[in-house]
Amino acid sequence: MLLMLTGLTANTQTANHFFPEKDLITTGIYYYPEQWDESQWERDIKKIADMGFEFVHVSEFAWFKMEPEEGKFDFAWLDKVINLCVKYNLKVIMCTPSATTPTWMRLNYPETFIMDGHYIRAENGTRGLESIVNPKYRMFVDKIVTEIAKRYGQNKNVIGWQIDNEPPAISDYSPSSQEAFRQWLKNKYKTIDALNAAWGTAFWSQWFSSFDQVVIPNTNLVGWWGNNPHALLDFKRYLADSQAEFLDFQADILRNFISKNQYITTNYTAVCTGADPRRTKKLDFASYTAYPNGGSDNIGELGFRLGNSKAILFAAEYYKSVGGVSGVMEMQPGPVNWGWYNPLLLPGAVRLWLYHSFAAGGKLACSYRFRQVLYSSEQYHSGIIQTDGVTLSPGGEEYMQFMKEIKDIRKQYKPTAKMPEKLAARSTAILWNLENYWSIDRQKQTNQWDAWNYPVKFLEMTKSLGAPTEVISETADFSKYKFRLFRLMNWLIQHW
Amino acid sequence: MLLMLTGLTANTQTANHFFPEKDLITTGIYYYPEQWDESQWERDIKKIADMGFEFVHVSEFAWFKMEPEEGKFDFAWLDKVINLCVKYNLKVIMCTPSATTPTWMRLNYPETFIMDGHYIRAENGTRGLESIVNPKYRMFVDKIVTEIAKRYGQNKNVIGWQIDNEPPAISDYSPSSQEAFRQWLKNKYKTIDALNAAWGTAFWSQWFSSFDQVVIPNTNLVGWWGNNPHALLDFKRYLADSQAEFLDFQADILRNFISKNQYITTNYTAVCTGADPRRTKKLDFASYTAYPNGGSDNIGELGFRLGNSKAILFAAEYYKSVGGVSGVMEMQPGPVNWGWYNPLLLPGAVRLWLYHSFAAGGKLACSYRFRQVLYSSEQYHSGIIQTDGVTLSPGGEEYMQFMKEIKDIRKQYKPTAKMPEKLAARSTAILWNLENYWSIDRQKQTNQWDAWNYPVKFLEMTKSLGAPTEVISETADFSKYKFRLFRLMNWLIQHW
Amino acid sequence: MLLMLTGLTANTQTANHFFPEKDLITTGIYYYPEQWDESQWERDIKKIADMGFEFVHVSEFAWFKMEPEEGKFDFAWLDKVINLCVKYNLKVIMCTPSATTPTWMRLNYPETFIMDGHYIRAENGTRGLESIVNPKYRMFVDKIVTEIAKRYGQNKNVIGWQIDNEPPAISDYSPSSQEAFRQWLKNKYKTIDALNAAWGTAFWSQWFSSFDQVVIPNTNLVGWWGNNPHALLDFKRYLADSQAEFLDFQADILRNFISKNQYITTNYTAVCTGADPRRTKKLDFASYTAYPNGGSDNIGELGFRLGNSKAILFAAEYYKSVGGVSGVMEMQPGPVNWGWYNPLLLPGAVRLWLYHSFAAGGKLACSYRFRQVLYSSEQYHSGIIQTDGVTLSPGGEEYMQFMKEIKDIRKQYKPTAKMPEKLAARSTAILWNLENYWSIDRQKQTNQWDAWNYPVKFLEMTKSLGAPTEVISETADFSKYKFRLFRLMNWLIQHW
Repeated sequence: MLLMLTGLTANTQTANHFFPEKDLITTGIYYYPEQWDESQWERDIKKIADMGFEFVHVSEFAWFKMEPEEGKFDFAWLDKVINLCVKYNLKVIMCTPSATTPTWMRLNYPETFIMDGHYIRAENGTRGLESIVNPKYRMFVDKIVTEIAKRYGQNKNVIGWQIDNEPPAISDYSPSSQEAFRQWLKNKYKTIDALNAAWGTAFWSQWFSSFDQVVIPNTNLVGWWGNNPHALLDFKRYLADSQAEFLDFQADILRNFISKNQYITTNYTAVCTGADPRRTKKLDFASYTAYPNGGSDNIGELGFRLGNSKAILFAAEYYKSVGGVSGVMEMQPGPVNWGWYNPLLLPGAVRLWLYHSFAAGGKLACSYRFRQVLYSSEQYHSGIIQTDGVTLSPGGEEYMQFMKEIKDIRKQYKPTAKMPEKLAARSTAILWNLENYWSIDRQKQTNQWDAWNYPVKFLEMTKSLGAPTEVISETADFSKYKFRLFRLMNWLIQHW
Repeated sequence: MLLMLTGLTANTQTANHFFPEKDLITTGIYYYPEQWDESQWERDIKKIADMGFEFVHVSEFAWFKMEPEEGKFDFAWLDKVINLCVKYNLKVIMCTPSATTPTWMRLNYPETFIMDGHYIRAENGTRGLESIVNPKYRMFVDKIVTEIAKRYGQNKNVIGWQIDNEPPAISDYSPSSQEAFRQWLKNKYKTIDALNAAWGTAFWSQWFSSFDQVVIPNTNLVGWWGNNPHALLDFKRYLADSQAEFLDFQADILRNFISKNQYITTNYTAVCTGADPRRTKKLDFASYTAYPNGGSDNIGELGFRLGNSKAILFAAEYYKSVGGVSGVMEMQPGPVNWGWYNPLLLPGAVRLWLYHSFAAGGKLACSYRFRQVLYSSEQYHSGIIQTDGVTLSPGGEEYMQFMKEIKDIRKQYKPTAKMPEKLAARSTAILWNLENYWSIDRQKQTNQWDAWNYPVKFLEMTKSLGAPTEVISETADFSKYKFRLFRLMNWLIQHW
Repeated sequence: MLLMLTGLTANTQTANHFFPEKDLITTGIYYYPEQWDESQWERDIKKIADMGFEFVHVSEFAWFKMEPEEGKFDFAWLDKVINLCVKYNLKVIMCTPSATTPTWMRLNYPETFIMDGHYIRAENGTRGLESIVNPKYRMFVDKIVTEIAKRYGQNKNVIGWQIDNEPPAISDYSPSSQEAFRQWLKNKYKTIDALNAAWGTAFWSQWFSSFDQVVIPNTNLVGWWGNNPHALLDFKRYLADSQAEFLDFQADILRNFISKNQYITTNYTAVCTGADPRRTKKLDFASYTAYPNGGSDNIGELGFRLGNSKAILFAAEYYKSVGGVSGVMEMQPGPVNWGWYNPLLLPGAVRLWLYHSFAAGGKLACSYRFRQVLYSSEQYHSGIIQTDGVTLSPGGEEYMQFMKEIKDIRKQYKPTAKMPEKLAARSTAILWNLENYWSIDRQKQTNQWDAWNYPVKFLEMTKSLGAPTEVISETADFSKYKFRLFRLMNWLIQHW
């Protein structure tokens, strides 16, 4: 699962051309016009520009407003917003709204929802519970993405596209998923004998005589300890493959209509144990979302107000493995509402995180969200702007400072500058494979083992030794790394 | 949510006339004739009278015996019991039996049960799981309450009526409740646009195009963090309104038949986070049930045998806000069976609680229950009488002592006595609103916040400062209070 | 529930004749030919014999291989295995495969599965979730047991039969079980009035007018505290009776075909809170399965690698109450995979447990399992042989040592040896009744009470005083015990 390699970091990556090197990092902000009266849009967008932001992120959760009734599309409101962005010289990231279907779809086509492990369908009330393998849902996604791509794919102000939101590869036990899982197994194993061998179905009489007999392994109904780990692992693989295929499916639609100057990405959560970013084939790069403070402790008595910056540490390197770009798409601008406790952040915490992200090679830093919303689930989740709609929050102040400082640093940019040789010589790679994580996490030798944070500890160590470190997969080109793990280990053993 | 006001306590309340001031407090006891052989009834009731009790509380859980088959009523057994009470000079509180339907209804009309958050119906086996908005259940309640009211409404020995038992405003996800919730929303919002605005459905694409699209917000299916807090708050309001309306529905039936000398009440639990006593309009007053010792700790090493008397502190003031009367309808007479641990009470604990209740202005003190039952869920829950049917329990002894002492104190009653001016000048009010509690408890800044016990702490503080304190609502007449919160706070800051 | 009697231990028991006294204890091992390529069978079985094992335990989980399609039986593979055992002078314990139905049955006849307390059926993926009262399942069991009994019932190499596996008396809320429960109640109570009286249905209006109204008491749906304890106790009794009747049902089938030299047993878990071994009438004796180390602590810093041998202490005596024989059918040979943590065992731990079992009068010691399997749920559960298929595991080494030592000890066997009088005079009995355990465990005075381990503590005490101790039922012949509990208690009070 985890192997440390040292050598020179790769320099040539495919998606970096979307981010001019001289800009260092570009900053943006989420804005939800659908949550505010139209009369305030211009004031808000002007404010975004005045603060120093360079792009606006829109339309992620707005399906209900783009398609208020089945088949009736309305983009006039979004046109206005984008025109205002043009007016104030702000670029735009458009989002496909697939992560939150409108109520009419939820009610009229309940099959578009996942089913949980007790075979109960999800319901209206939140986001991210769609059955991404359901054909009806796919049809609706196809239509809305086509519409939005047609409308904004050639818009010069639109710099890129985010597909979906925090793709979760969520467990889905619905009939659609059962069928898709069986199909996935057929594709993988070809014959049921091959599946029987791979899953060891001779154990506990689980032997299948045809693919039709297979159901999704369900720990809810047969107990954690008793489930077949190979079946569970394949279920994880299937979920990750379906998630990647769903993102690629949307990317394909977009590509039919959009300009080559627009990139395609998505925003994985920093700790993403289900979706596997490397399985997509059509995205330009992967970004991540970072919420370092959800009530967790950290250094010292006031550490709970600082939170744990390590959430950024691993994500900033890991997601480079798709397209070579590191970028944070959501970044906590102050207290959230969903933590165990939700303290006011320590002054400087937000700026600290922004620099963490930048120091790791971040090319874009976008924050969730401009205005603190006055209602619903995240009413008490802070924004860049406070509830009055005009006053900067403390986090907003720190963003402004960061953006000003970046503009200063840009002036120091030297195209010919290179990493010092001594530093480059320490370049290290951590080999990380999500399938191994699933397998180990499922069958830990002890419940005290934290499978996810194991590589994070190694990364913390190499970084603290001043070693540039990549997170790579086993298909990476190893030739550029010198294997020095053992020497490092010896050193550590002597100096610990 | 919480505001402290000081001034003179209100003197004129509507339901105090049911309790002659010279009696100070009247005591009674729960008796379940249906649980004992008829041959023992007279012995038991004579014993109740001999011990010094003044009234008997009956028929709360006896629907199966009043209506053993659908539509066939039998009150002959209850007549005998009440006649025995007359013979031994004991008054009677009658109860409507709506909190426990008979098995025939549960089996033949399963729709009379609530559904849980996974849409599974409750079942025979316990109490308090009725769907109070189900029309079929309402029809049966209407019939049984009519029958019992007709039979005992003019009985001179019956002093009052308890409706239902510990009304819980329990969450109900049944089709009946879904329909009732939608109707409640229509009544409140009139238009779906108004609901969309109030619930902020622009967030996460939750927008509705008609009331028919709304379902009860279900944290079981969409996750705690993701649910719309306004929808959840309205669900709480709907549940509390339905509970109040159900109690008023029964009160209306009773009023058609009963004497004006008989009062109508119900018995809320001391800590009642769901039902809102102030929402009823037809009850004369609200009583409460108090179980201070369920294995909780308190002062000192033996505190677990004392339990936490604060359960009485808040309830005794809070329930005065309905009808101005404070009365405890159930009071723990010894160890219960359902605590984390169920210790023998410290000698004196029961008498202590009775005086707590009296000191807070309690007009009636009734205990659950005369005889410890020999079977079923509360077999190991103590009574006034031990399992042999004749021997007093330690708690029974303390009740006797209390009743004797009260009779002595009654001799000291002076109709013209007034509260000392110095004391009266400290009169304080705590403003408490259950809706605010729901809202804050749902979205706490930290999980370490105990929203219910916040006002209890204030009440403890004012009482410890010798201040008569009322728990009032924001519709109370504030003119009689002088606002001195800040002065008090200053004093506290200086003397803490 | 628990009563200590002292006297002489009984000498005449019915099933001891299956185990020649001069052999002291016989050892065996689980082997799963269906999990390995046929080419390895002879090598494996020869190795078993070479190591010193005396018998092989087979076919427990092999229904899928015996009846790969409904009604098509195949025993050719098993014949080969048994012939190899003959060749290498190894006896065989055959098992009925009822604890793990094949997939075709699970899919085609889902009614053969239990339903959980939310009325959701179990599914393919593990073992032990059959609805043992379902008529369809019974029909399939009847057929397979008949086939296997016919085939091997007169095989001279087969020494005995194990019915099912770790019979759990698992809670089953399926329609089949509902019907069977009602029938069980009719048989017990004859009239619904008798049930009403026994269950105290006058409490909380639970009164039934016919047996048809009764459903299985369901704590999942009506809450733990509110359930009728007598209904729950009867459900426990019904489950235990059904489990016993199911074992007897299989024993009856076997008896029609097998030799009188073959015994019939089953293998209860060491801590078995549901199934009651004493309720069977047709089994020769009961064996137990022992897993002392599942991550539990014990003496000293390394105690977690030793585990808790007390798991054997009680089981070794308790199961003697069926047929007078003590025998361990599964014994942990090294780390398991399902513990909280799964440490390497301390050197000597396995041998220690074997001697524990032997010292308690064990007649057979069989271990789960010969080879560590290369896949599925117990992939990381150790075996006697390591994953390479030929190397002994540390536990395997200890088994070999134990078997060699037993052969030496056998040479010291003296048929006329008797227990020293002083020791025999201390003979003690602990009266243990599972129904009392159920009742007390359901309604503990405190949650800190460990009802199961209460008699275990007494047993530990008597053993530490050098007293031979039996675990008996209240129907045992008390005449042979002198009641000395109080003298013992006095002694303890003085010397504690």
